[in-house]
Amino acid sequence: MDLARLRKAMATGGLDTVIAVSPENFYYATGSYIITQKSLRDRLALAVFPGDGEPVVIVCGIEQSLTQGTSRYPDIRTYVEFAESPISVLRDVLREKGASHGRVGIEMGYLSWRYAEELKRLCPETKFQECAGVFDNLRMYKLPHEVERLEAGARATARLINDAMQLLRPGDTERDLAVRLRHGLIDSGADEIAFLVLGTGPRSSITHPIPGDTRFQPGDVIKMDLGGLYGGYYSDVARTFGFGKPHPRKQDRYRRLAEIHRSVIERVQVGVRFCDIFDFCKTQFSEQGLQFHMPHIGHSLGTGLHEQPVVESSNTHVVDEGMIINIEPLFFDSEDGSGYHIEDLVQVTSKGPKVLTGSNLSVDMLWYCS
Amino acid sequence: MDLARLRKAMATGGLDTVIAVSPENFYYATGSYIITQKSLRDRLALAVFPGDGEPVVIVCGIEQSLTQGTSRYPDIRTYVEFAESPISVLRDVLREKGASHGRVGIEMGYLSWRYAEELKRLCPETKFQECAGVFDNLRMYKLPHEVERLEAGARATARLINDAMQLLRPGDTERDLAVRLRHGLIDSGADEIAFLVLGTGPRSSITHPIPGDTRFQPGDVIKMDLGGLYGGYYSDVARTFGFGKPHPRKQDRYRRLAEIHRSVIERVQVGVRFCDIFDFCKTQFSEQGLQFHMPHIGHSLGTGLHEQPVVESSNTHVVDEGMIINIEPLFFDSEDGSGYHIEDLVQVTSKGPKVLTGSNLSVDMLWYCS
Repeated sequence: MDLARLRKAMATGGLDTVIAVSPENFYYATGSYIITQKSLRDRLALAVFPGDGEPVVIVCGIEQSLTQGTSRYPDIRTYVEFAESPISVLRDVLREKGASHGRVGIEMGYLSWRYAEELKRLCPETKFQECAGVFDNLRMYKLPHEVERLEAGARATARLINDAMQLLRPGDTERDLAVRLRHGLIDSGADEIAFLVLGTGPRSSITHPIPGDTRFQPGDVIKMDLGGLYGGYYSDVARTFGFGKPHPRKQDRYRRLAEIHRSVIERVQVGVRFCDIFDFCKTQFSEQGLQFHMPHIGHSLGTGLHEQPVVESSNTHVVDEGMIINIEPLFFDSEDGSGYHIEDLVQVTSKGPKVLTGSNLSVDMLWYCS
Repeated sequence: MDLARLRKAMATGGLDTVIAVSPENFYYATGSYIITQKSLRDRLALAVFPGDGEPVVIVCGIEQSLTQGTSRYPDIRTYVEFAESPISVLRDVLREKGASHGRVGIEMGYLSWRYAEELKRLCPETKFQECAGVFDNLRMYKLPHEVERLEAGARATARLINDAMQLLRPGDTERDLAVRLRHGLIDSGADEIAFLVLGTGPRSSITHPIPGDTRFQPGDVIKMDLGGLYGGYYSDVARTFGFGKPHPRKQDRYRRLAEIHRSVIERVQVGVRFCDIFDFCKTQFSEQGLQFHMPHIGHSLGTGLHEQPVVESSNTHVVDEGMIINIEPLFFDSEDGSGYHIEDLVQVTSKGPKVLTGSNLSVDMLWYCS
């Protein structure tokens, strides 16, 4: 993270101090990846950025040695779990930095109600306000090393999906394929499997099905969406395939969705508003004769799985160089109960959109085990 | 979840209504596993339990079909992400159930400050209070199918660790071993890799090291802690091994810790207070001449990774039949920078503690590639 840019954003937002609380902002801000921040929510890790002076990192004592070895900022304070509250350490730091009477930004969308009540009680004179936007605005513009990680992750994920599909055999279940995809994620260098959903036949109409014992049947649509964490950065790729001999109706529905996908990616041009891309996508669904149900049709990603900008109807911000967006139209055929989903990573460049997933954006549905 | 027991716990706690908000309680209460509840925090899934009348489940429209197919309760309400707030749907449900003027329990340790502010604004007449304890008290006593899943997960995880260690070769890095462990978790039937930390040599002194490119060196201690999610239930097993020819000091330190581990497990007897088990463990460290730094020395697990009871100094509750506890003493040797950690799953029975991990609790440290 560029500290000078953060301070500029703080000044613009009228904030004297900001506090990163969520795993995505804490890692982005400090460079320390604390795995328990995700699995044990109460064990807070906080990064405090005063308007001037050195930032302070607050972690559970258990995570001290990890933080010392990885944090960009050397001033690390600790609390003893169960015996001390991280909020009382935060109060002391705010006092020490002269921030108690100022305007302090904190992630109100992450900090729990319980910790919030404690914070208000311990810092009665401090004005707290939401600061997620400050971090969102920074993370929205990817730095070169971030683009590199995101591209590598997206390409690896798209490739391993293709590799796993080559191994599909008659009689396989969703779980068999899921297991191959999970092995693929690990072999591709993912430090974590972030998520994996996969459904076949009628189960493809579920947005996020947990792969189970359902066997692939001839004519089935297989829909999947998966991602890994590569060096702290997410991948997120969705694909739809056919099982058995090509089924004309399904072939046709896929082609329509793929045409929409291609045309929407083409609209990711500098200066275009995200709400206009959303509306364009909606119009394309109508032109292709497909029902449209999506609350959003794309999002950025990075140290978080869904990041701003989100491509939804109320987002009036414009596409800008340095942004990276996943475009992911999704269609459910209510008549035959099949679901279709395609998701690719797109980099905004001055010359237009660049697909980073390594996909050729073919509109032909691939059928396996025919 | 046993609805009658929940209602009894609600009555005891003086609550007219309770609302499950966290992934662990939502899955426990409804049987629906919504993967985005963990990865996309703002996309709330809520389960509302009125004192009488049917429970109501509130999910994002995207998750409707999944919830319909898996929820124990058929009354499912949805909201459109970005266009509607889950909190306004919750307000409507509370009104409809006549709960708005009552005492409503909600997970204040999970719901975010931002949603809490919205909830207080939309329901000015409702008294909200923490209800995590109500769910904690239920989840503390495992049902037979839960014991089965937890035992299977623990045994599978302990076994795959041993299998992966057999494949260790000179020249291997932490990452090589981590990759084998991850493959092992998947092959053992885990739906998700919950977490995996592993460090060798001086990096074993970090509590939660992310495995990297460090090569194993003769005399190194290799410390690891990992878990998977098996049918919605966590496993969590820690092991410590040696690399190369047995090193007498490290051998000795391991043996002392393993003796402590064994003696602490022996104390997990019906009627004993958790704080007394903690104090006993602390005393054992002192008797073995080891420095003690741990804020807790064990915890239960289930649909959450750390559940009550937690074995820490302020927990005056007593061990009871039906409970399952992980015991996990950890020791850092400040003189030579090595860390040691052993963690096993223990079931409380009327006949005494039963180790479910399938470990024989040997006090000898195993050395590989000697």
